[in-house]
Amino acid sequence: MTVSEDITWHTATVSRADREKMNSHKSAVLWFTGLSGAGKSSLAHAVEDRLFKLGCRTYVLDGDNIRHGLCKDLSFSDTDRSENIRRIGEVAKLFTESGVLTLTAFISPFRSDRSTVRELLDEGDFIEIYCKCDLNVCEERDVKGLYKKARAGEIADFTGIHSTYEEPLKPEITVDTAAQSIEESVEQVINALVKRNIISIN
Amino acid sequence: MTVSEDITWHTATVSRADREKMNSHKSAVLWFTGLSGAGKSSLAHAVEDRLFKLGCRTYVLDGDNIRHGLCKDLSFSDTDRSENIRRIGEVAKLFTESGVLTLTAFISPFRSDRSTVRELLDEGDFIEIYCKCDLNVCEERDVKGLYKKARAGEIADFTGIHSTYEEPLKPEITVDTAAQSIEESVEQVINALVKRNIISIN
Repeated sequence: MTVSEDITWHTATVSRADREKMNSHKSAVLWFTGLSGAGKSSLAHAVEDRLFKLGCRTYVLDGDNIRHGLCKDLSFSDTDRSENIRRIGEVAKLFTESGVLTLTAFISPFRSDRSTVRELLDEGDFIEIYCKCDLNVCEERDVKGLYKKARAGEIADFTGIHSTYEEPLKPEITVDTAAQSIEESVEQVINALVKRNIISIN
Repeated sequence: MTVSEDITWHTATVSRADREKMNSHKSAVLWFTGLSGAGKSSLAHAVEDRLFKLGCRTYVLDGDNIRHGLCKDLSFSDTDRSENIRRIGEVAKLFTESGVLTLTAFISPFRSDRSTVRELLDEGDFIEIYCKCDLNVCEERDVKGLYKKARAGEIADFTGIHSTYEEPLKPEITVDTAAQSIEESVEQVINALVKRNIISIN
């Protein structure tokens, strides 16, 4: 090949639409938000499990795979929390472009940060799922013992104790994780995805 | 559901092996490295196109979708270039865990940065593909006019002109992009993936 031929190399591009067609479902970001202990991660993984069994391509971004990797350089200060959410939003966007149904499970306490992610994505791609559960219920559950530590002053900047959780004003889905079983919550999310034509169940 | 039941919620986890089985291929990172103009991005997209036609789940990370998004806060200083590659490595790791064959196309001039990514991943997951093309050929092609600008002092820290490109010492694949056609190069990469049992062609 000569040099002059080189500049005619085309960039072959597989499009998002191509990928969605191959997958037989649309991609989107299912953004689970809520207090620590509200059940975001459990619900996200349970929804993923259900979607996977339906043959969908999925991935969950959560503290386990983000905080020790991509965002290991960030603290829990307000500024770093915002940068944390920004990066997660950017990664979720890449996954969405790759045709994957992306689920994220982060407290993401600030409305402005969640809005930033929503605006980053195409219209309809950001599905905010509010895992609604009163602080006293989350604190009573205290699955990871974090509220006890926060009350004892062993954890700083703990959402609900030292810093604010700003409830979503118009979430696409609100899941009452204080009252519903996880199975009921999974059904609620799956039904909402069907209604939005993101997945179809035959 | 009562509070006491809540703590028995299991985290359903779809594994990488589950995803690879669904996809009928393994996941890995195809890390294209080389000088500007060596054909990394064109080759990565052409390989992706071929893999997609074979029914594989793929995604290309390159300057177009990384530098204006996840890494838009970074400059081209040595420190920021390293952080850029670190983040790309972490994102490639997430994609690999999601079962996707991930292709990256970045100059990634420093051996230590590429080693960091290799070590981040499981054994065998990092496939370094050196797009070998002499500086004078890249500069003669100058597809994007960047070498001209760099020589004129309009671009600082340009690899090959002001800063070093450290050739891979033991890349998994070396593609002679100065001599081979893009079709030949695609075949070479595809054949290497078959040999490594990452994909199979029936």
